[in-house]
Amino acid sequence: MALIVQKYGGTSVGTLDRIRNVASRLKRTRDEGNQVVAVVSAMSGVTDGLLKMARDLSENPSERELDVLVSTGEQQSIALVTMALHDLGVEAASITGRQAGILTTGSHTRGRILNIEPQMMQGFLDEGKTLVVAGFQGVTPDGQIHTLGRGGSDLTAIAISAALKADVCQILTDVDGVYTCDPRIVKNARKLPEISYDEMLEMASSGSKVMQSRSVEFAKKFGVVFEVRSSLNDNPGTLVLEEHPAMENVVIRGVSIERSQARVTITGIPDEPGMSGKILGALGDAEINLDMIVSNIAHDGYARHSFTMHANDLAKAQAALKPVLAALSADAKIETDVGIAKLSAVGIGMRSHSGVASTMFKALGDAGINIGMISTSEIKIAVTVDETRIEDAARAVHDAFELDKEPVR
Amino acid sequence: MALIVQKYGGTSVGTLDRIRNVASRLKRTRDEGNQVVAVVSAMSGVTDGLLKMARDLSENPSERELDVLVSTGEQQSIALVTMALHDLGVEAASITGRQAGILTTGSHTRGRILNIEPQMMQGFLDEGKTLVVAGFQGVTPDGQIHTLGRGGSDLTAIAISAALKADVCQILTDVDGVYTCDPRIVKNARKLPEISYDEMLEMASSGSKVMQSRSVEFAKKFGVVFEVRSSLNDNPGTLVLEEHPAMENVVIRGVSIERSQARVTITGIPDEPGMSGKILGALGDAEINLDMIVSNIAHDGYARHSFTMHANDLAKAQAALKPVLAALSADAKIETDVGIAKLSAVGIGMRSHSGVASTMFKALGDAGINIGMISTSEIKIAVTVDETRIEDAARAVHDAFELDKEPVR
Repeated sequence: MALIVQKYGGTSVGTLDRIRNVASRLKRTRDEGNQVVAVVSAMSGVTDGLLKMARDLSENPSERELDVLVSTGEQQSIALVTMALHDLGVEAASITGRQAGILTTGSHTRGRILNIEPQMMQGFLDEGKTLVVAGFQGVTPDGQIHTLGRGGSDLTAIAISAALKADVCQILTDVDGVYTCDPRIVKNARKLPEISYDEMLEMASSGSKVMQSRSVEFAKKFGVVFEVRSSLNDNPGTLVLEEHPAMENVVIRGVSIERSQARVTITGIPDEPGMSGKILGALGDAEINLDMIVSNIAHDGYARHSFTMHANDLAKAQAALKPVLAALSADAKIETDVGIAKLSAVGIGMRSHSGVASTMFKALGDAGINIGMISTSEIKIAVTVDETRIEDAARAVHDAFELDKEPVR
Repeated sequence: MALIVQKYGGTSVGTLDRIRNVASRLKRTRDEGNQVVAVVSAMSGVTDGLLKMARDLSENPSERELDVLVSTGEQQSIALVTMALHDLGVEAASITGRQAGILTTGSHTRGRILNIEPQMMQGFLDEGKTLVVAGFQGVTPDGQIHTLGRGGSDLTAIAISAALKADVCQILTDVDGVYTCDPRIVKNARKLPEISYDEMLEMASSGSKVMQSRSVEFAKKFGVVFEVRSSLNDNPGTLVLEEHPAMENVVIRGVSIERSQARVTITGIPDEPGMSGKILGALGDAEINLDMIVSNIAHDGYARHSFTMHANDLAKAQAALKPVLAALSADAKIETDVGIAKLSAVGIGMRSHSGVASTMFKALGDAGINIGMISTSEIKIAVTVDETRIEDAARAVHDAFELDKEPVR
C-alpha cells in the first residue's frame, strides 16, 4: 500500500462542485489501494475577499493579524473537502497546519518550515483515514499562526511528503506538467517526463512559474521526488527528482522566458573596491530583486554596471540609487531601458557538452534577433532581447536544440 | 488599573463599520485606564453561510468538520477587530480559542470548558496589549477543535474572566439589561440594577433569553460577577451576582413568559412504580426537552401525567410515546393541547415571604385568566394560560407585585 500526497490549488477547490470532484479523485486514488493525504489551498477568491476586508480596515494591516485572518481560508476548504469525502463514504479527517505539526520560523506572512511533528496525522492514517491538510500554514513553536507566503501549499505538500515518508507527491495544477517551453508560444513544445531539481530551479527563476523556487529547494534538500500533473485529467505529468547520469545526454532540457524586464546601467563610477557592494546594497535595502548582473570596466577607467529587474521595480530602483550615486561620484549616470525580455536555456547536459552558447547565439543571429546582456551559470545561458522579439527567440532556440524531438537515450 | 472583559456578539461585529465601532469602544475603555480583553463572535451571517455550504455538501455533515469549518468565523472577526484597533493606534493582539488555552471536553459542536491555560493571554497583557479573543471555541487536550454550542461566546467571556481574575465582565448585547418583564409587553417594566444567579437561571429557563443557562451556571460556579448591558449606549446594565441579604426584600424579581408551548396528557396508565420512568425515558431518548411535569392519581386508580414542551416537539413526542404506551396499557390515551403559554414569577424573596402564589392567582383571576398547570420551585411559580391571554397575564402579575416601582431597601 503506497502513501500518496496530492496537492490541490485554490482553483481546484474553487466551488462546491469542484470540491466534489476533488473528493471523487481522492476516493479513486484510495480505491486503488493507496493511503491518501490531500493538501488543499483556500477556495479561489476567499483569500482575496479577506485581504480586501483587511485593507478596508487598515492601510497597512498587521502581518500577524493577516496570518490569523487568511489562514481561515484553508481551514474552511479542508473541512469542506472532508465533508465531501464523507458524503462519498470515505473515512476522512481534516488537519489544520497546527494539527499537522507544521512548525515554522521566520516572519509572519512568509513563514519558513522548521520541522513537522506528524503524530496526529500518523494516528489518523493508522486508523485508515484519508487526510485533508491545510496548505500554506503552520505555527511557531510558541503557538503563533504563520502563513508560508506564495507557493506555500506546494511547500506544505512537499514537507509533509518528507515527514510522512510518502511514496509519491503529486502537485496537481492547471498545467499538464513541465514543458520544454511554454506551449502557447512554441506550438511543438514537448512535455518533459522528468527534470532535475536544479533544472527546475533554473526554469522557475527564469519565468516558468509552475512552482516557487523554495518548494523545489525544499524537495531537493529532503530528496522528495514529486510530480507536477494536471488536476483535470489523468495524464502522467513531469517527475522532478535528483539528476541521474542518463539525464546528461540531453544538452538543453528547456527554454523559459520572462517578459517586462528593465535594465539599469550605471556609468561614471570609479573602478575601486567596494563600489559594487555599495550599489547592490542600496538596491537590496530597497527590496529589489535583481536578476542578471553584468559589470565591466570601460577604457576610461570607470566601471560600467548593468542589472535587470522587473519593470515594476524600476522607479523604486532609481529612487534608491540616486543618493548613493551622488555620494560616490560626480560623474555617475543612470541609464534605464525597458521593453526587454529574458530568454534562458537550461540543462544539466551543458556541463558535459561544449558549443551550447554558440549554437544558441547562432540561432538568434540567424533569426535576426539582437542579443543584449548575457549571463551564464553552470546549467543555464540567459540573454536579454527586445521584448517584441522574445517569442521568435524562444522558437528559434527551441528549434536549434531540437527540443520538440524525444531525446535518444 | 482594572481588567475588563467585554463580550460582543455577531451583530455588534456584523459589518466593517460596526467592527470600527467596537474598536472605538474598546479604545475608550482602555483610555479610561483599564486593561481590556474583548471576546467576539463571528460576523453575523458568516456562520450561517458556512453552514449552508456544509449542508450543500453533505446531508448530515460530520460534527468534527463542522467545528473546524465554523470556528473560522470567529478567527476572522478577531483578526479584523484587532486590525481596527491598530488603525486607532491601540496595541492589540488577536487570540484564537486555542491560543487562549481554552481546553474543552464533551462532544463536537457542544464542547464544555474543562480548563483555561491563560499563559499566552497573560504574556500579551503584561506587554500592555489589548486582547481580542475568539468566542465560542476551544480545543481538546489532544488538539481537536471544538465549538461550544449556543451562547458559547458568553461562556468564553465568563470563563476567561475567571481565568484572568478580571475585575469586570460585561456581556454587551442588543438589550439594555435584564428587565422585570419584556418591555415590549409590559410598558412600565423596569431595568433591574442586579439579579442573583439563581433568579437569572430561572428567568433564562422561562423564556427570558438574554443568556443561556450554562453561562450563568458557570459564572455562579466560579463566582464571576457579570453585567448585561447594551453595546449601543453607555447606560448601566444589570449586574448578575451571588445573592446577598438585601436582595430578599424583593418578593418577585421579575416575570418571564414563554409562548408556543404544547401540553401532552397521558391517561389510563396503571399507578405502578416505574411507569413514569418509562414514559419520561422514552421522551428523553427522543431528545425532547420537557418543561413542566405534573403527575397525579385519578380516582379510578389510574395515573394522569401531564408535561409541557415546545410545540415544535409535539409530533416527535407523540411518535416516541406511542409504542411505549401501547406496551404499558391497553387503556392508555394521549391527549394533546397547543396554543398555551407559560408565565413564571421569579424571586429569591419568595423563600421568606408567604402568600406569593395567592397574590399571583388572585391577580390572574381578577383579570379573568384561567390557569392551566401549575409548577413551583423554591424561587419560582409558573403557570400555563391560554396563549391569547399571556400578555394580559404578564401585565396583571407585573402590576400585582408592583414591579414597576423601585423597591424599598
